[in-house]
Amino acid sequence: MRKDQFILPEGVTYLDGNSLGPLPKAAEARVAEMMRSEWGEMLITGWNKAGWMAQPAALGDRIGRLIGAPEGSVVLGDTLSVKVYQALASALELVPERKVVLSDTGNFPTDLYMAEGLIRSLGQGHALKTVAPDEVAEAIDETVAVLLITEVDYRTGRKHDMAALTARAHEVGAVVVWDLAHSAGAFEVDVTAVSAEFAVGCTYKYLNGGPGAPAFIYVRPDLADRVHPALSGWLGHDAPFAFEPSYRAGQGISRMRVGTPPVIQMAALEAALDIWDGVDMAELRARSIALTERFIAGVEALCPGVTLASPRDPESRGSQVSFRFEEGYAVMQALIARGVIGDFRAPDIMRFGFAPLYNDEADVDRAVEIMADILETRAWDRPEFKTKAAVT
Amino acid sequence: MRKDQFILPEGVTYLDGNSLGPLPKAAEARVAEMMRSEWGEMLITGWNKAGWMAQPAALGDRIGRLIGAPEGSVVLGDTLSVKVYQALASALELVPERKVVLSDTGNFPTDLYMAEGLIRSLGQGHALKTVAPDEVAEAIDETVAVLLITEVDYRTGRKHDMAALTARAHEVGAVVVWDLAHSAGAFEVDVTAVSAEFAVGCTYKYLNGGPGAPAFIYVRPDLADRVHPALSGWLGHDAPFAFEPSYRAGQGISRMRVGTPPVIQMAALEAALDIWDGVDMAELRARSIALTERFIAGVEALCPGVTLASPRDPESRGSQVSFRFEEGYAVMQALIARGVIGDFRAPDIMRFGFAPLYNDEADVDRAVEIMADILETRAWDRPEFKTKAAVT
Repeated sequence: MRKDQFILPEGVTYLDGNSLGPLPKAAEARVAEMMRSEWGEMLITGWNKAGWMAQPAALGDRIGRLIGAPEGSVVLGDTLSVKVYQALASALELVPERKVVLSDTGNFPTDLYMAEGLIRSLGQGHALKTVAPDEVAEAIDETVAVLLITEVDYRTGRKHDMAALTARAHEVGAVVVWDLAHSAGAFEVDVTAVSAEFAVGCTYKYLNGGPGAPAFIYVRPDLADRVHPALSGWLGHDAPFAFEPSYRAGQGISRMRVGTPPVIQMAALEAALDIWDGVDMAELRARSIALTERFIAGVEALCPGVTLASPRDPESRGSQVSFRFEEGYAVMQALIARGVIGDFRAPDIMRFGFAPLYNDEADVDRAVEIMADILETRAWDRPEFKTKAAVT
Repeated sequence: MRKDQFILPEGVTYLDGNSLGPLPKAAEARVAEMMRSEWGEMLITGWNKAGWMAQPAALGDRIGRLIGAPEGSVVLGDTLSVKVYQALASALELVPERKVVLSDTGNFPTDLYMAEGLIRSLGQGHALKTVAPDEVAEAIDETVAVLLITEVDYRTGRKHDMAALTARAHEVGAVVVWDLAHSAGAFEVDVTAVSAEFAVGCTYKYLNGGPGAPAFIYVRPDLADRVHPALSGWLGHDAPFAFEPSYRAGQGISRMRVGTPPVIQMAALEAALDIWDGVDMAELRARSIALTERFIAGVEALCPGVTLASPRDPESRGSQVSFRFEEGYAVMQALIARGVIGDFRAPDIMRFGFAPLYNDEADVDRAVEIMADILETRAWDRPEFKTKAAVT
């Protein structure tokens, strides 16, 4: 759909945009311009003149469009882990009489870790309860304070029914925090339609903001002025530059800002978000399904011994496909050596992300063909493909 | 000392490195290279191949040298606000029986705000007590759990006696958290010599890492394996890529990492830190004092009506000089319009930072001369200089 707007190295089929999106061509120029003409020339005055200070809200609005959030309800900053902490802390305060944070074993670990840390700090007898992903719906009962769920499972691509789980949570009086790490930019999301209280996500996967791009947080507008930020930093203050001695939460979503925003990262992200202007999310989703269906069909036809780990029903998948294979780590290294980049998650999962902005049928076919060859020739069975790197 | 290594716009005398350091020439090329050759070419494999994942510790070590911290005791990440929260949370756990967090009214507000938020979350009856800066020493008593102090006052440049206050805190069994925002890169700091438990700081002021560059945190090595992180993110886990269901704190300082590090910002910071290699901090401090003394003498001789807000004794100052003037805001705008960039802090403080890496006597003399002219001709008395911008 927009392949010409990305730098994609010669000979590489990139199927890991679910982990780190590729470099948008415009991001290079935008960052260089920010460095030279803003930081270099404006120096400190860039905070006003170049609009750095306003950018977390401005870029938040652009992400808002992709997740069904109205203007002024999304703000950028920090990392997703920190945004999970903020959202969960605020969510728990809305339901002070309940003590259960319900999540699932398919959640990305940092969400669970941050919840553990928060619960420990609060010391109010909260408990983190995790159930299998397909048991979440029935586990939502009147003990649950907050449902903390990542919509798409980072290993399998299994996609939760956000509308149904949110409705169920609301039925019993629980509050929801949706982690959209693998949703934003992957398919249509509508936090408003489901009336989610909180949503968080990252911008370096399908949104292509670059390694370490800032996270985002959404708070439902009717709640935004009621929640009290646990991380009450100066940029979430109602008047940051008045330097008052005590914290007063800012208006609406601005109170979810904490410290100085990462201006260079924001420049790259801004260029990445330009690519999304005019993208029809329904069309993107249709393209994504066409690609993942084609990949599954190809692998199942030509790669004996690998097992689909993702849901077969495309409506129950995000924009990635995972296959299990005992020697999956080595197969993935062999794939990468031949220019097909996916990634691996222990114990045996090979992940392939499909981003219709820059992936097409030729990528799918090449990946299938090379994987088939690697399996047939056992090209993966070499010591150098079995040595695990620090980051898998 | 290293002026040729920075981009300094023609006609600008930059005296605001205490707020945002200027662009190091090498940072432009380093970031461009990171964008194209690492993100663009390596894509996801950059986490290993380009060493992105190891960088928060590697750059932490380089900052460690500037603050007297041994290898492996400093790590980068997040913002200073978040690092204050982490340090204070861990510090309070070391002294569970005490409830007072002692700070001063000269602390940067976000430190106080983050402390308020943490205290509220903990709900254990802690209290934040702030006294005037010159009353801190006598306020340190056996009720104090943690002394949370910024060494240099952001408004006046007043420098605390870190050794004396830390010793006093230790005498009564309190733990210290030093905020080195205006210290790191400004003069010699030795967290080891004073045996500080925690220190935090930012890297976009005297260290020149760029707008929104990540913060740093130091934990005294004998404590690093004992403290339990409140913000228990996956990159602080002992085995982040094992994706275990529960948090296990990583070894030593690594547990103070939280989420994905900002790789583009780190590239700029790396280039900025290169400039520090071989800089003698004692020589830097001597140059800083020479510049601030010359500035004070010049202003006091030629600018009637402005009052020194900084300590007169250079040993009690950081690397900035502040003057009070009722129309200070307008005077500062007039200075900026003529190419002398400092900044303003309410109600009446004009701040001028002196960074010997790129400031010299010519900068001092030009700033004095232009300020004298602006005051003499009342050039500040124009409406456009009195309209306050969002960021002051």
